[in-house]
Amino acid sequence: MKIRVLHGPNLNLLGKREPEIYGSLTLAEINQQIERHAAAIGLQVEISQFNSEGDLIDAIQQAAESSKAIVINPGAYTHYSIAIRDAIASVGLPVIEVHLSNIHSREAFRHESVIAPVCAGQIAGFGLGSYLIGLDAAKYLLEKKAEG
Amino acid sequence: MKIRVLHGPNLNLLGKREPEIYGSLTLAEINQQIERHAAAIGLQVEISQFNSEGDLIDAIQQAAESSKAIVINPGAYTHYSIAIRDAIASVGLPVIEVHLSNIHSREAFRHESVIAPVCAGQIAGFGLGSYLIGLDAAKYLLEKKAEG
Amino acid sequence: MKIRVLHGPNLNLLGKREPEIYGSLTLAEINQQIERHAAAIGLQVEISQFNSEGDLIDAIQQAAESSKAIVINPGAYTHYSIAIRDAIASVGLPVIEVHLSNIHSREAFRHESVIAPVCAGQIAGFGLGSYLIGLDAAKYLLEKKAEG
Amino acid sequence: MKIRVLHGPNLNLLGKREPEIYGSLTLAEINQQIERHAAAIGLQVEISQFNSEGDLIDAIQQAAESSKAIVINPGAYTHYSIAIRDAIASVGLPVIEVHLSNIHSREAFRHESVIAPVCAGQIAGFGLGSYLIGLDAAKYLLEKKAEG
Amino acid sequence: MKIRVLHGPNLNLLGKREPEIYGSLTLAEINQQIERHAAAIGLQVEISQFNSEGDLIDAIQQAAESSKAIVINPGAYTHYSIAIRDAIASVGLPVIEVHLSNIHSREAFRHESVIAPVCAGQIAGFGLGSYLIGLDAAKYLLEKKAEG
Amino acid sequence: MKIRVLHGPNLNLLGKREPEIYGSLTLAEINQQIERHAAAIGLQVEISQFNSEGDLIDAIQQAAESSKAIVINPGAYTHYSIAIRDAIASVGLPVIEVHLSNIHSREAFRHESVIAPVCAGQIAGFGLGSYLIGLDAAKYLLEKKAEG
Amino acid sequence: MKIRVLHGPNLNLLGKREPEIYGSLTLAEINQQIERHAAAIGLQVEISQFNSEGDLIDAIQQAAESSKAIVINPGAYTHYSIAIRDAIASVGLPVIEVHLSNIHSREAFRHESVIAPVCAGQIAGFGLGSYLIGLDAAKYLLEKKAEG
Amino acid sequence: MKIRVLHGPNLNLLGKREPEIYGSLTLAEINQQIERHAAAIGLQVEISQFNSEGDLIDAIQQAAESSKAIVINPGAYTHYSIAIRDAIASVGLPVIEVHLSNIHSREAFRHESVIAPVCAGQIAGFGLGSYLIGLDAAKYLLEKKAEG
Amino acid sequence: MKIRVLHGPNLNLLGKREPEIYGSLTLAEINQQIERHAAAIGLQVEISQFNSEGDLIDAIQQAAESSKAIVINPGAYTHYSIAIRDAIASVGLPVIEVHLSNIHSREAFRHESVIAPVCAGQIAGFGLGSYLIGLDAAKYLLEKKAEG
Amino acid sequence: MKIRVLHGPNLNLLGKREPEIYGSLTLAEINQQIERHAAAIGLQVEISQFNSEGDLIDAIQQAAESSKAIVINPGAYTHYSIAIRDAIASVGLPVIEVHLSNIHSREAFRHESVIAPVCAGQIAGFGLGSYLIGLDAAKYLLEKKAEG
Amino acid sequence: MKIRVLHGPNLNLLGKREPEIYGSLTLAEINQQIERHAAAIGLQVEISQFNSEGDLIDAIQQAAESSKAIVINPGAYTHYSIAIRDAIASVGLPVIEVHLSNIHSREAFRHESVIAPVCAGQIAGFGLGSYLIGLDAAKYLLEKKAEG
Amino acid sequence: MKIRVLHGPNLNLLGKREPEIYGSLTLAEINQQIERHAAAIGLQVEISQFNSEGDLIDAIQQAAESSKAIVINPGAYTHYSIAIRDAIASVGLPVIEVHLSNIHSREAFRHESVIAPVCAGQIAGFGLGSYLIGLDAAKYLLEKKAEG
Repeated sequence: MKIRVLHGPNLNLLGKREPEIYGSLTLAEINQQIERHAAAIGLQVEISQFNSEGDLIDAIQQAAESSKAIVINPGAYTHYSIAIRDAIASVGLPVIEVHLSNIHSREAFRHESVIAPVCAGQIAGFGLGSYLIGLDAAKYLLEKKAEG
Repeated sequence: MKIRVLHGPNLNLLGKREPEIYGSLTLAEINQQIERHAAAIGLQVEISQFNSEGDLIDAIQQAAESSKAIVINPGAYTHYSIAIRDAIASVGLPVIEVHLSNIHSREAFRHESVIAPVCAGQIAGFGLGSYLIGLDAAKYLLEKKAEG
Repeated sequence: MKIRVLHGPNLNLLGKREPEIYGSLTLAEINQQIERHAAAIGLQVEISQFNSEGDLIDAIQQAAESSKAIVINPGAYTHYSIAIRDAIASVGLPVIEVHLSNIHSREAFRHESVIAPVCAGQIAGFGLGSYLIGLDAAKYLLEKKAEG
Repeated sequence: MKIRVLHGPNLNLLGKREPEIYGSLTLAEINQQIERHAAAIGLQVEISQFNSEGDLIDAIQQAAESSKAIVINPGAYTHYSIAIRDAIASVGLPVIEVHLSNIHSREAFRHESVIAPVCAGQIAGFGLGSYLIGLDAAKYLLEKKAEG
Repeated sequence: MKIRVLHGPNLNLLGKREPEIYGSLTLAEINQQIERHAAAIGLQVEISQFNSEGDLIDAIQQAAESSKAIVINPGAYTHYSIAIRDAIASVGLPVIEVHLSNIHSREAFRHESVIAPVCAGQIAGFGLGSYLIGLDAAKYLLEKKAEG
Repeated sequence: MKIRVLHGPNLNLLGKREPEIYGSLTLAEINQQIERHAAAIGLQVEISQFNSEGDLIDAIQQAAESSKAIVINPGAYTHYSIAIRDAIASVGLPVIEVHLSNIHSREAFRHESVIAPVCAGQIAGFGLGSYLIGLDAAKYLLEKKAEG
Repeated sequence: MKIRVLHGPNLNLLGKREPEIYGSLTLAEINQQIERHAAAIGLQVEISQFNSEGDLIDAIQQAAESSKAIVINPGAYTHYSIAIRDAIASVGLPVIEVHLSNIHSREAFRHESVIAPVCAGQIAGFGLGSYLIGLDAAKYLLEKKAEG
Repeated sequence: MKIRVLHGPNLNLLGKREPEIYGSLTLAEINQQIERHAAAIGLQVEISQFNSEGDLIDAIQQAAESSKAIVINPGAYTHYSIAIRDAIASVGLPVIEVHLSNIHSREAFRHESVIAPVCAGQIAGFGLGSYLIGLDAAKYLLEKKAEG
Repeated sequence: MKIRVLHGPNLNLLGKREPEIYGSLTLAEINQQIERHAAAIGLQVEISQFNSEGDLIDAIQQAAESSKAIVINPGAYTHYSIAIRDAIASVGLPVIEVHLSNIHSREAFRHESVIAPVCAGQIAGFGLGSYLIGLDAAKYLLEKKAEG
Repeated sequence: MKIRVLHGPNLNLLGKREPEIYGSLTLAEINQQIERHAAAIGLQVEISQFNSEGDLIDAIQQAAESSKAIVINPGAYTHYSIAIRDAIASVGLPVIEVHLSNIHSREAFRHESVIAPVCAGQIAGFGLGSYLIGLDAAKYLLEKKAEG
Repeated sequence: MKIRVLHGPNLNLLGKREPEIYGSLTLAEINQQIERHAAAIGLQVEISQFNSEGDLIDAIQQAAESSKAIVINPGAYTHYSIAIRDAIASVGLPVIEVHLSNIHSREAFRHESVIAPVCAGQIAGFGLGSYLIGLDAAKYLLEKKAEG
Repeated sequence: MKIRVLHGPNLNLLGKREPEIYGSLTLAEINQQIERHAAAIGLQVEISQFNSEGDLIDAIQQAAESSKAIVINPGAYTHYSIAIRDAIASVGLPVIEVHLSNIHSREAFRHESVIAPVCAGQIAGFGLGSYLIGLDAAKYLLEKKAEG
């Protein structure tokens, strides 16, 4: 069972960028831990990072072919990219929205996600942990569906 | 390591109330699965449900003595109980806010959580799964803290 | 056919409190007239008053077992208690929202009822009469359902 | 004691128009039941329907001469006709605002009534029943006034 | 002359909770100083703390029998409890709203008090001092009334 | 210990202007009582009234040299003078904002004080008493600081 | 030089309707004084009153043929009739908007005129006087135009 | 196949009224071209213009009997006539909303159409062309429906 | 009978400043015509212009002693000077607010007058004419009062 | 005469994506019909689809060289891409905005087009038909321009 | 070529007031550097500071006679002084608005400048540098005009 | 000392696009003058223009390696690209936001910059001059930093 993991804009700077908000792990280290955890719970992952909105839309559309679910951290696009929202709405997969920081305790404009209404669920505030339990959530949803 | 699990108003009706939104498991069944999962990952849990805002505040205050973290589904109080927000802000524990449904895809007034700004993180939309991965998140946060 | 009649916060002060808005009848006198009218149109009533939001939620939940409909004056909770709204949404009964005063001609914050969207209907502005025709409305709805 | 009953715009289509919202009775059938109920409780009624805002204003002004109270369903004008509001404010009669559907559970723009602040009270959500208990309310108010 | 002093939710945590905002005195210490100051200016006080909105409403209603004025710190309920507002409006006593911190210099949602419009006055920002000069204010108002 | 007492625009009309809101004492009488109370509690006061925003700013700036605290009733400037706000923020003194009437129970535009966020605290609604307990508050804050 | 004078909805009730707001003169008496004043300053007037928005639009359109200016009291339509606004914008005449009461000191929804942006000017608050000085204004504008 | 074409308020002034916005063709010339184009694509049309909201509602209701679709330019009523909206919602025909000017590039209050949510589609900005392609659109929708 | 005429900020630039909005007459020429018209209708006037808010407040307060009415063009202060509003509210004279331009057809922030709610009436849009008919209005109000 | 036809983000999924909103035709089928209709009315078309905002801007800029008009469905970018708005404003061509669905009857955030104010016109709600009559509109505008 | 440099309210406190926001240079030191830089680039400057809004208006009006451009830091008046805005609009000079701090990164109410719409440009965030490059900008604009 | 100069979307059209707003210089000419001015004040520049948001993010990230400061005109992205804001926040360089036109005097949506809160300062309204003095500002900031 393959899960597509997508990192949005500026996440390639992790570890360098505002560590008091985003932690000190680099994206490479985070990806390593995502892969380790995925393996531990019996999932395959394909991971990418994109700064461009258009590239994220392409990747979401392609995931519909290759994967069973998407775990996505849309970064700043969370708050205005209706185009990414429409891409998510158009694929038949459960999509899990994750955030490193608790977006609900930051600036007001980060409280609203234009993407959330078309996702299965949202996880925010656990740093690297948001991705790891995002995978747990993906597994949970896929198993429930399989039982279903 | 004990985790306090708190269910807010009307959650005692689970399984009977609007199953298309909240699923068909009763609160007793959910609690059983919470306990099973907690045991599996090496946590103890103490679980309660309250309809009254004042009772929830009391329980949050008392958890400061007995527990290492709180997993709370504040139900409808999520959206207006500044008193619960202040109770959470006043205890020194990591608090994890969970919701059965994806509150961000429901009525607009359910998008904003007055409680979120004082919680460690928020998990919404995975049904029973929200509680289970809420425990995972609690464990993750406590271990990270222990590591220092 | 039993109807549950619920009075919200501060209604125990009726007759003493701001009579220019709420009239000069005491709650006891109002209840007497409610009982008389109920008997006259062939209904049984069980009447209670609560200042506490949690107690009102409990009473609404219990009415699901014992009654065919609820006539409720939620008082000030009308305007912010999403928890009472969720309790009403979760019981399978027709619920009729009544108000002594015409809330729509008072302060702006009293115009919006967070509870109305999950009630069968709303009656406001007729003093004691709001309860009496609330019972008429309950009878009307139950008969229509029985026919239907 | 004569009561003026006024139906606003599009109510001539009742029974044909969106029956899932407004029910399957035609306006003629509704008027028949209004007359029957009025007779049963000792009231006379004069009933009209108008699509034009100006005609409704004329009718409200004339009712001041001929009737003791008005029961009005202002239809869509409820939400913007300040001219009808001013007409109601200018006649010395108790005016009872009724709605077939529960306007408070429909689109947001139907929650606010610009007319309500100058009416005695509002009844919404009971279909034909809204008119019938509207007559009950009119009778209640007139008797209370007579008692003094 | 007896004054009812009421502490709202979470004030039982004083001294433990966020001392940078609320100071380091415990509620017991504060109550001691309130009693000492009351005695010094010739007032009797009866002091209680409640986490529950319903309990605060009960206490306000009962104060109407036993006391000449109320000094209340409604805590978080300040910002949304219309039910407490209605309770205050319904008792015939001067009510003085006090706050430890200057609510007008904190988060925007703490600037507006739904309770203030029915109180005699508001005092905010002087820590324990808010209660002490709240008693001074109560004395001032009662003397002016006595003169008056 | 000298306290600077500043009266804002139109307060020179006290006793003549809208006595039902502001009372019947003239400014001279109020100043006399302020001086008497200050003397009684061991404070010196220097009192002035200004209609001009610029003059108030000058006086606030000069108080930094001569006084230990400011008690100010900014009158209408309370609601829009960011320039006075900045003047207060720039002096190192505790500033106590006082109002004769309870601004929170008047027109909505009087609820918000642009000055409050930079003051130590706010006292409103006690007529002349607001100034007197404003002095008590100033004394309390200065003693606490001296202790502290 | 003919001036078209138009009275909007409910103005036919003048003298009967809410005299504390609109004064005790009937429309006939007002029209008499308008005619007398017009004659005194050398103007002819043609005066009508309409309850219907459509009739007012017709009259405005026709005035373009017969008159040099319009003095209009649009009554409640002032606040929402964009159709009357468009009618005024489409005729080439100076239009003077008049109101008996000072609409800017009444309910907030009466402060904004959707018609004002296409009128030459607005006069409000002088009762009958608003019409009389409205004629003075019309004369002033026409003379200034003639002077060129 | 007959199409009902309805012109709203002030459109009888076309060619005279603000030609820089609405063009220099008169309504008669526009109607001629509408008829010519209708004939060219095999449609019959019945065309009317009304200044009165009530008359437009009547015409919409009657079209349900005689026509297959409505092409309507509601003029200023576009922005506030919920009564016309309800009339459109109550007829079973596809309704095409057309505007001469591009309402989305004019004053903000012209951007929102309260009528659009119950229409099949909207065409704005092409002058006379809006009507002509409105007929094309009507034909397209009716053929698609016929195909099934 | 003396009338105080007050010009607000920047009106000393008349004739030089933005003539397309304010006309080409200088303030001296306007004052001459005001005096001529006043004399013609039997009024005395005392005219001043001030750029400073404080000076305008002083002048309004002093007019209470010397004059029977005030005609004021508050210029930009119209839109934010609550201090001038309070000064007007505190004098017992009828105050007539005048504007050269039609403030209701300019930028949105010029539509609302914070001063209007405490004035007798408002006249806007007639250039110099606004002052002249403002004097007519003052005379009308004073005569009506004398009669009354 | 060449027309540039541009499809925005996610339109490559047509036929697969939410067919209840967007219909069952694929983009290839739609393009075929666009080409057929263009040929029928004597136009050439060049058609492209882009997910990326930057690519759409590039294409709009290039169309200025090669085409006489643009027919664009900006998809989700309609609601926030001020960059596309500025690109359209900077080319000298008539631009026709088209939408498959009636954006005015969907979520509120889809009602406002940031692009519309710089387009010639907007067509929404006719599925494939929106493109076809969009070409008709382009032809109409170009012919009118040619006529002069 | 003379440039008028105007400092608004509280800027006389520079160096003393909140140095973490405004830096540690006094106004005298800043003025010295302004003069030095002006001389270096061939400009003359006349510099003043005013706390009073009226004085700033006077100075702006007078600059029209004596100077070629104005560099103004309106301080807190930036956010509400429509009177200063009107003064700037009324003089024929290019006006350059400067701010020591980046007002766009401070409290929300400091983001909007009511003065900016009538200025040539705005420079914010460079401390003393804002004035220096403000002079550069003035020179640039005057040279471009001279060329132009 | 190298400065990275970035031009946002549509700036490649300069000189062709809306010259009344943006001037008649082409981007190549502007770049030439930027380079000349940089050389004159001892700075090196690397200049690029991008239409794509993703490309701008990439360039900002890369500048952190190669440059000491960024001068950026984010064009339309100024008003909504939180992704560019986050990129700027994540690099350790001073960033200077420049605009050709005075964005604060254009459409309301151009007044707010989502990017400004993370920039050192903002310069708007001086055409080409905005870039030139932007370089001056960069030099000023870097020297001040060097001084320490």
